[in-house]
Amino acid sequence: MRKIYLSNLPRLEALKKFLAEVELPHHTENIATGKALDRVTAEAVFARYSMPGYHAAAMDGIAVVAEQTFSASDQSPLQLEPEHNYRNINTGEPLPSGFDAVIKVEEVHFNTDGKAEIIAPATPWQHIRAVGEDVVAGELIVPGRHRLRPQDLGALLAGGITEIEILQAPRVAIIPSGSEIIDPGEERKKGSIPDFNSTVIFSYLKQWGADPEIKSRVPDDPDRIRKALLEAINEFDVVIINAGSSAGDKDYTFAAIEELGEVFLHGVATRPGKPTILGQIRKKPVIGLPGYPVSAYMSLEWFTRPLIYRYFGLPLPERQKMPVTLGRRVVSELGVEEFVRMTIGYIDGRFIANPLTRGAGVTMSLVRADGLLVIPANSLGYEQDQMVDIELYRPDYELNHNLMAAGSHDLILDLLATSLKERDPYLSLSSAHLGSMGGIAAIGKRQAHLAGVHLFDPDKNDYNWPYIDKMLTLKDLRLVNLAYRMQGWIVPTGNPDNIKTIDDLAKSGVSFINRQKGAGTRILFDHLLREAGLSPDQIYGYEREEFTHLNVAASVAAGTARAGLGILPAAKAFDLDFVPLAEERYDLLMSNSFYSSKEAEPIFEIITDPAFQKKVEDMGGYSMRDAGKLMSRKE
Amino acid sequence: MRKIYLSNLPRLEALKKFLAEVELPHHTENIATGKALDRVTAEAVFARYSMPGYHAAAMDGIAVVAEQTFSASDQSPLQLEPEHNYRNINTGEPLPSGFDAVIKVEEVHFNTDGKAEIIAPATPWQHIRAVGEDVVAGELIVPGRHRLRPQDLGALLAGGITEIEILQAPRVAIIPSGSEIIDPGEERKKGSIPDFNSTVIFSYLKQWGADPEIKSRVPDDPDRIRKALLEAINEFDVVIINAGSSAGDKDYTFAAIEELGEVFLHGVATRPGKPTILGQIRKKPVIGLPGYPVSAYMSLEWFTRPLIYRYFGLPLPERQKMPVTLGRRVVSELGVEEFVRMTIGYIDGRFIANPLTRGAGVTMSLVRADGLLVIPANSLGYEQDQMVDIELYRPDYELNHNLMAAGSHDLILDLLATSLKERDPYLSLSSAHLGSMGGIAAIGKRQAHLAGVHLFDPDKNDYNWPYIDKMLTLKDLRLVNLAYRMQGWIVPTGNPDNIKTIDDLAKSGVSFINRQKGAGTRILFDHLLREAGLSPDQIYGYEREEFTHLNVAASVAAGTARAGLGILPAAKAFDLDFVPLAEERYDLLMSNSFYSSKEAEPIFEIITDPAFQKKVEDMGGYSMRDAGKLMSRKE
Repeated sequence: MRKIYLSNLPRLEALKKFLAEVELPHHTENIATGKALDRVTAEAVFARYSMPGYHAAAMDGIAVVAEQTFSASDQSPLQLEPEHNYRNINTGEPLPSGFDAVIKVEEVHFNTDGKAEIIAPATPWQHIRAVGEDVVAGELIVPGRHRLRPQDLGALLAGGITEIEILQAPRVAIIPSGSEIIDPGEERKKGSIPDFNSTVIFSYLKQWGADPEIKSRVPDDPDRIRKALLEAINEFDVVIINAGSSAGDKDYTFAAIEELGEVFLHGVATRPGKPTILGQIRKKPVIGLPGYPVSAYMSLEWFTRPLIYRYFGLPLPERQKMPVTLGRRVVSELGVEEFVRMTIGYIDGRFIANPLTRGAGVTMSLVRADGLLVIPANSLGYEQDQMVDIELYRPDYELNHNLMAAGSHDLILDLLATSLKERDPYLSLSSAHLGSMGGIAAIGKRQAHLAGVHLFDPDKNDYNWPYIDKMLTLKDLRLVNLAYRMQGWIVPTGNPDNIKTIDDLAKSGVSFINRQKGAGTRILFDHLLREAGLSPDQIYGYEREEFTHLNVAASVAAGTARAGLGILPAAKAFDLDFVPLAEERYDLLMSNSFYSSKEAEPIFEIITDPAFQKKVEDMGGYSMRDAGKLMSRKE
Repeated sequence: MRKIYLSNLPRLEALKKFLAEVELPHHTENIATGKALDRVTAEAVFARYSMPGYHAAAMDGIAVVAEQTFSASDQSPLQLEPEHNYRNINTGEPLPSGFDAVIKVEEVHFNTDGKAEIIAPATPWQHIRAVGEDVVAGELIVPGRHRLRPQDLGALLAGGITEIEILQAPRVAIIPSGSEIIDPGEERKKGSIPDFNSTVIFSYLKQWGADPEIKSRVPDDPDRIRKALLEAINEFDVVIINAGSSAGDKDYTFAAIEELGEVFLHGVATRPGKPTILGQIRKKPVIGLPGYPVSAYMSLEWFTRPLIYRYFGLPLPERQKMPVTLGRRVVSELGVEEFVRMTIGYIDGRFIANPLTRGAGVTMSLVRADGLLVIPANSLGYEQDQMVDIELYRPDYELNHNLMAAGSHDLILDLLATSLKERDPYLSLSSAHLGSMGGIAAIGKRQAHLAGVHLFDPDKNDYNWPYIDKMLTLKDLRLVNLAYRMQGWIVPTGNPDNIKTIDDLAKSGVSFINRQKGAGTRILFDHLLREAGLSPDQIYGYEREEFTHLNVAASVAAGTARAGLGILPAAKAFDLDFVPLAEERYDLLMSNSFYSSKEAEPIFEIITDPAFQKKVEDMGGYSMRDAGKLMSRKE
């Protein structure tokens, strides 16, 4: 019997239930104050000594007896005898006994005979740091449950606290489970998955102040899972098992926790993150995380992070929120709280946000995301151009300078992103892979700064402008060449099917992997078909689409396709063969306002830099001969 | 000859000059990806492998051949044979060869004979994770100059990057200098200062990603300073020397750097932080930090932090800014950029900010500060009630719940602060030590949530109300008792002057240390004087003021006063004798709206909790018999 039902508890209710059921007992230890940065105090700490421990000069100058100076004035300067009436004193030095004021060195004239001349009286206790001015013995320095910052350590040491009682970091065991799991460094075979989740979970826990440890991997075997859980429960404060938390026939996590302890929740009404298990064994929290990376990390943040912050008695840090305009419609299912990763760019005076893939398996979407759109369970989503609040992954002052590229993607844009950052740390470039037509549309809707476009129009024998003119009515557009690049057949090593022309492809009947509609490469392929007098149904696999050159090459490398159309670097990335077909022009479309803006300057500087051009051409299949050149319509 | 002139260059000009003159050369190293959290990439990183490396099931269910399912419908369910027409498959498992779609387990009915029944067709490639869906070989994972987050490590490992080239942390030497400096743990003598600055500097540098090292202390000896600088320059990328950066006759830092290299700047137009030195030796940046803690830390942030962030190619993190209402006037000198540490509380619907001490030596002000007010050089400051922008040290969602206590301070408020945090991490309590009268005024101006008040009126034989009624016209006030506490003479151990009454004090002629005007203890002292028929000029030291009980005790302990009036715990903090005089009532004044608010509830719960009351009474000199009781006027 396969158990296939998960509950659908709202996330915050699930958290409340969990926190009400489990508690991490406090453990404390004494450590050297100098090593206590970022640790959390167990109790309030009061100063043992005063700082300064004596009256000290607050200025460089001379120590005097105030009442001996009362007669000094502009009209009748006063001469003070060294030793007797004054002593030189530097900032921080103790006030000599019998003296009760300091005069700043700038206000003293030293005569050659060693006398000091002053022209104004000193008031008693002026320019003196009194005992305890900084910290006074008995004073509260920091309360309990306080995360120690650099300045706190300074005040503690000033107050004579050289050792401090802190809350120990809760120890968290991370158990990777699944028979398909291998070490990230192990050789990859079909069906094996490198365990990168454990490293991510470990790293998040570290950032939150816990003391995580990755345990040995456990295969999909109920006995071994139970054994691993029990061992971890003995030694750790919290146990996380990843994954096996869903309802497949090899998902043993639920049964194991229920048998050894208690499950409070199996299934939360979110996407991603649904198959989460919250439970306890011997009163210690046990968390079953989903196997999909994005689900796992979000679930970790929702349930484990609050547990750890509550242990430390610290407020849960909140992400900065920012209102943005949606560049695209974002739909959501009723009854499920959805978390959509978004990119954000500042375009023509507004922050525009666009959704990334919602695939729970796409770790890269968390790498690329600038923020998170949370769609409540009772919402069907949001319309294009609607204003929504986004939780930011990056601070707003960085997003101000986030350049958004849309349209056809090319590896040159990735190199450009790094060169921009090297030139100015505030510059970043995000790319959305929308295909050339998608890119033109995005520029038309002011949703991107620039779009990669490579669309050949055989009628006009021109690149890009015919399509732009058809799709957009905007007048202030500029088209700048980035590169010429070679398109060709991506085929298995040795080109076993001997594909050279599109006729060869049709005749051989081998499975082809196509690009998505609107992609320049797709349009090129359709053009080749027409030229050869072929129809799409003569190409086996014409309807199978991938979104990037690299994904086309990946399909050929995996053997699920025998040929694709794409660029040389994609073939090289997979050690595949490449049969050159034609050089095409790849331009960047942008508004004139962006073209002439300060933000755009570094882009042009970089793409016309010979060192950068060499780097691109060394990849193979590129010519940068017109890079940076403004491309006009052919008449 | 004493050199006494420092330059007055504006801070941002100084920074620009410094960054233009020095550069940290990049050093890189390869480390395991699993250990690369928070490190910064040297170069763009591209995926080596695809993830997944094969077509995999995206759902738990059955693998099918799509075209075999096309006839399935509600009306005519289709029976699939195991092995032949379908295979069980779990999320992440490779798609068996020959199959091209997955049907979710929820949509399958398994018959007892092992056949799977479906009532809808599958579309080709549905519920399949294609090769490279997460990461595709050759794809950019992270650009260069990118600080690695947990999710980045996941994507890197998914893409087969198990080792990564990172920028090494710049090595920074911290040289503590000054003959008066001792280790924080060493026994303190008059004139010795524990070196806590080095720990604070070390900790900030760590937070910014540098690799700091605290070198041996160097006395005020030009030869030894030069030697220490040269040794450090050989081994480190940046050298920081603290202090000796000013213009006193033992400030050798300037001369040493100038002799060995070059000084770009000596003196910046800021307060605090002025005596900063920026220079280079053998092309490596050398920074002379001021000796005063607050000056040192601010100067470090202004000049060393940008150097380190520029090395990493990362944008300099900016603090959140918030508009607040000034509770008090803040004046500033023309021509100097001033940095004023501020407390912030949310009172009656507005954020109110008040300045803390500006003493450059008061580390505690950085501990207590919620934010920083930057007053430009061309401003004379701001008026009370003016709106100003504050750079926040704590996030705004914490300041929302920051309770502001003003008025007379009592140690019970410190204990209360910790108990509040233990009860609710979001609750914090900041205390401004303004004296009882200052506290009443603060409540009147809605600048604090509560004020500690202990003012006896002999005419009305009542506490606090007579003063409140005189000072405020507000009607909605509540007075809640916190404690009764014993006031008495704080005198050296053994009470050598045998002070028992105020007559003894006057007759003995020993030096007294008074409290500031408006303090309840000052008013009590004046009352005792009048009762005894004495006048202030019969008390030696009547005009010398301290702001807290502890600082009074500190003066007695330091021997600069022989008697003060205060509470028992202050005497105990310094092992002094205490001669009890009279029990006084210490109340908390607040508005009725705060009294009846949700925020105030935990305060009343804590002060009426017997465990808390015992903790207070165990300190000695306190009675909590009326704690939490509403105190009305005596008729």
